[in-house]
Amino acid sequence: MKAEIISIGDELTDGKIQDTNSSWLSRELGDLGIRTLYHTTVGDELDAIVDVFRTAVSRVDLILATGGLGPTADDLTREAIAKAARVPLIRDDTLLETIRDMFKRRGREMPLSNEAQALLPFGATAIHNPNGTAPGIDLTINRTFPEGEDTRTSGLRDSCRLFAVPGVPAEMKEMFRGTVGEALQHLIDDHAGRKRVIRSRTIHCFGIGESQAEAMLPDIINRNRTPRVGITANAAVISLRIMADTPSEQECREQIRETAEIIYRKLGDFVYGEDEDRLQDVVCRKLKTAGQTLAVVEAGTRGLLTGAIASGDGAEAVFQGGLVLAGTPDIEEMIAKTFSLWDVDIVLAVGPYGPSGQTTVAFAERPPAGASGPGDSGLGRVVAEAFPRTGHPALIDDLFVRRAMDLLRRR
Amino acid sequence: MKAEIISIGDELTDGKIQDTNSSWLSRELGDLGIRTLYHTTVGDELDAIVDVFRTAVSRVDLILATGGLGPTADDLTREAIAKAARVPLIRDDTLLETIRDMFKRRGREMPLSNEAQALLPFGATAIHNPNGTAPGIDLTINRTFPEGEDTRTSGLRDSCRLFAVPGVPAEMKEMFRGTVGEALQHLIDDHAGRKRVIRSRTIHCFGIGESQAEAMLPDIINRNRTPRVGITANAAVISLRIMADTPSEQECREQIRETAEIIYRKLGDFVYGEDEDRLQDVVCRKLKTAGQTLAVVEAGTRGLLTGAIASGDGAEAVFQGGLVLAGTPDIEEMIAKTFSLWDVDIVLAVGPYGPSGQTTVAFAERPPAGASGPGDSGLGRVVAEAFPRTGHPALIDDLFVRRAMDLLRRR
Repeated sequence: MKAEIISIGDELTDGKIQDTNSSWLSRELGDLGIRTLYHTTVGDELDAIVDVFRTAVSRVDLILATGGLGPTADDLTREAIAKAARVPLIRDDTLLETIRDMFKRRGREMPLSNEAQALLPFGATAIHNPNGTAPGIDLTINRTFPEGEDTRTSGLRDSCRLFAVPGVPAEMKEMFRGTVGEALQHLIDDHAGRKRVIRSRTIHCFGIGESQAEAMLPDIINRNRTPRVGITANAAVISLRIMADTPSEQECREQIRETAEIIYRKLGDFVYGEDEDRLQDVVCRKLKTAGQTLAVVEAGTRGLLTGAIASGDGAEAVFQGGLVLAGTPDIEEMIAKTFSLWDVDIVLAVGPYGPSGQTTVAFAERPPAGASGPGDSGLGRVVAEAFPRTGHPALIDDLFVRRAMDLLRRR
Repeated sequence: MKAEIISIGDELTDGKIQDTNSSWLSRELGDLGIRTLYHTTVGDELDAIVDVFRTAVSRVDLILATGGLGPTADDLTREAIAKAARVPLIRDDTLLETIRDMFKRRGREMPLSNEAQALLPFGATAIHNPNGTAPGIDLTINRTFPEGEDTRTSGLRDSCRLFAVPGVPAEMKEMFRGTVGEALQHLIDDHAGRKRVIRSRTIHCFGIGESQAEAMLPDIINRNRTPRVGITANAAVISLRIMADTPSEQECREQIRETAEIIYRKLGDFVYGEDEDRLQDVVCRKLKTAGQTLAVVEAGTRGLLTGAIASGDGAEAVFQGGLVLAGTPDIEEMIAKTFSLWDVDIVLAVGPYGPSGQTTVAFAERPPAGASGPGDSGLGRVVAEAFPRTGHPALIDDLFVRRAMDLLRRR
C-alpha cells in the first residue's frame, strides 16, 4: 500500500511556515508498515487543490490531507475533495449540532461562517476533533482509470481511501492517534486480506558509530529477516528500529522482545534508551531515582548543556542551576565554582575550547563532608574525557553536550 | 509565473529528514515576485519521479528541483528529468574533467561511479557547484499539451524552465544565490517582456500588536499600492515587508526608501531591526558599540535567555556569562548575585515565576564605584516590567526572553 500526504495552505507554499506535519505523518505511517511515496503541498487555489487530489487518487491507495478545513473563504479542502471525488457537498445536521454545542460550551454564539464546517462530501464520515471546531473527513473514492487502462501495473486497488484533518499540529496528531490510526489498522487488515498487527520499537545508542554497531550485531539488519531491523544515525545517536508484522499482538510482542534482547546483549552499555527517550531524559530520571541533584557548567557551548538538562524528564527534581561561561576557563575551576554556587551532589561540565583544540567533558561528585583538606581541589571523584574539536562546525557543540550527558549516564 | 518545488529522496518521504529546502526556496522566489503554488516530494523511485516532473511541466512555468544528483544508484534525478523531457542523457566531457579535477585537488582518485555526474539531459546546461561534485541541471522543456488542448486557461507558456540542484542545503543555497538566481532574473525579464528589478526590505517591530501596527500606519498595506507592503506576525515580532518591482535598480531603491521612511516615522521605537536581524543581534551590537559588557540571569526559562544572548551578533565582545536558576528566587537577589560573579556593566534578568503568576523582566546597570552605601541593594539603575503569565504554554518562555531583550534594547 502506497500513501501520499497532501498539505494545503499558502502559508506553506510561500515558505512562511515550515511543514512539519508531513514528516511526522510519514513516520507514523512507516510504523504501520505503510510507505509514503509522495508529499504534495499546494496553495489555497481551488482548481490546483482539486488537481492535486485527482493526481493522488490516480497513484496511491491512501491519502492523508492536512489543512484548509477552517470556516473562512480560503479554506477549500472540503469543496476540493468533493470535486475531486465528483460528489456533492451535503450538510450534516448532526455535525452542525456538534459544532454549535462546542461554541455553546465555550460560552459563545456560533458565527454563521462555521456552518460550512458541517458540510461533508457525499459518502464521507466526519472525523471527531476533540480540540477544535473543524471536523475531519474520511472518504473512500472509487477510482476511474483512464479509458482502456483499467488494469494498472502499479497494483492499485479499485478505490482510494482519503483522510483529511486540520493542519494545526496538536489537532492533527490527536485525531490521527485516535480515529485515523484505528481506521488505518482496519485498512491494513483489509488490504492484506487478513488480520495484521504492526508494531515497532526503537532502541537508541550513543558512543558508537553506525558501522561499528552493525559489526557488533549478528546479521539482523537484513531486509528478509523477521522481524525487520533498520539502523539510522542522527546527530551521533544510532537507532535500531525493530518492526514486526504478524497476525497477532502476542506474536508481535514476542518477536520484538527476542530481537531487542539480542541488541541489548550485543551493544550493552552503548544502549541509552528507547523510542522517545533523549539522553537528558535518561540522565535526569537516573538522578531522580537516586535522589541526587545536579548543577551544570559550560564554556563555549552557549547554554546548550544547561538548556538540554533543564528540559529533561524529571528535571524539576534534579536540576538546580547552570553556569554559562565565556572564554576558556580551567575546567576544574569551573567545577569548583559551581559547587560553591549550588549545594548539589553532582556537577556536569563541558569546556574549555583552548588553543590545544581539545574539549573536555567531565562530571564531579561532591566529596563527603570533611573529606577535603587544605591544598586539595575540594572536589570528590572527577571523571573527564577530552576530545579534539573535529566535525561539522554547526553540529560540534551539540555533540559535546551529548558526550557530557552520556558520560554521566555511564557513571 | 507559477513555480513548483520538487524534492527528491526516500529520507524525506519516510520522514527521517525534515525538508527545509522547499520553504527556503519559496521565500527566495517570493522575494523575486514568483509565486510557488506546489511543493512536491517524491521517494527514490524512477517512474514516480518521472511522473512528478511531467505533472509539474503540465502545470507551472518554473520548476526548482533538489536532491538525487549524487553518484550512487539511488540518485535518479538526472535520468528522470531526461525521461520526463523525452531527451537522451549525454556525457559532457568538459563536465567530466571538472569533476575529475575536483577530486584531484582533494588528492583523491575519482571513483568510477562519479562519471554518472557528468551526464546531462540533451539540451541542458550544467550549473556549477563550488562546494561538491554534483553539478546542477538547467533545462528548458518544451510543453506538449494533450491533443486538442493546445491553449490552456492557466496562461502557461510554451516551455517550462527547470533547475535541478543538490539537496545538501549549503550547496543548494550557494548555487541558488549564484547561478540560478541570476538566470531567474533573466527569466523574469523575458516573462514580463521588459527589464524588471524586484527587491524587498523587511522591517521588524517588537512590543506592538499586528492590528495596532496597522492602525498606526497610513494606508500602505494595500494590494494596489506601489511598492507593496505586507505585514506578518511571528512569535510577537511584527514584520513589514516592502516589495518593489520596477524597471530600474535606482527606482526600486528609491521606492523602498520612501516607504521605509514612513514606517520608521510612524512606528518609531517599536522598530528594532531589518531583514535577518534578531533582537539578540541588535542588543549585542548596541552594547559592543558602547564598549559595554553583559551577563544574564534567568529563572524558569531553562537557559533560553542565556542561549539567545550568547548567539547574538558580536556576543564574543559583550557576553560574559549566564546564570540559570531553578525555582522562583527574588529577582533583585538574582541580579546582585550575577554582579558578584562577573565584572560586567549590565545584568539582564528574567524571572521569577511565583504564585502571583507574574513574570518580571529587568535590566540593571552597575553603579559607579563607591556609589553604593551600606543598606542599599548595591545595584545601580534597575528597570523592570512585570507581565502576567498568559499565552500558549509552549511559546510563553520564548516571549518573556524576547521581552527581556527588548527592554534592554529600548534602554
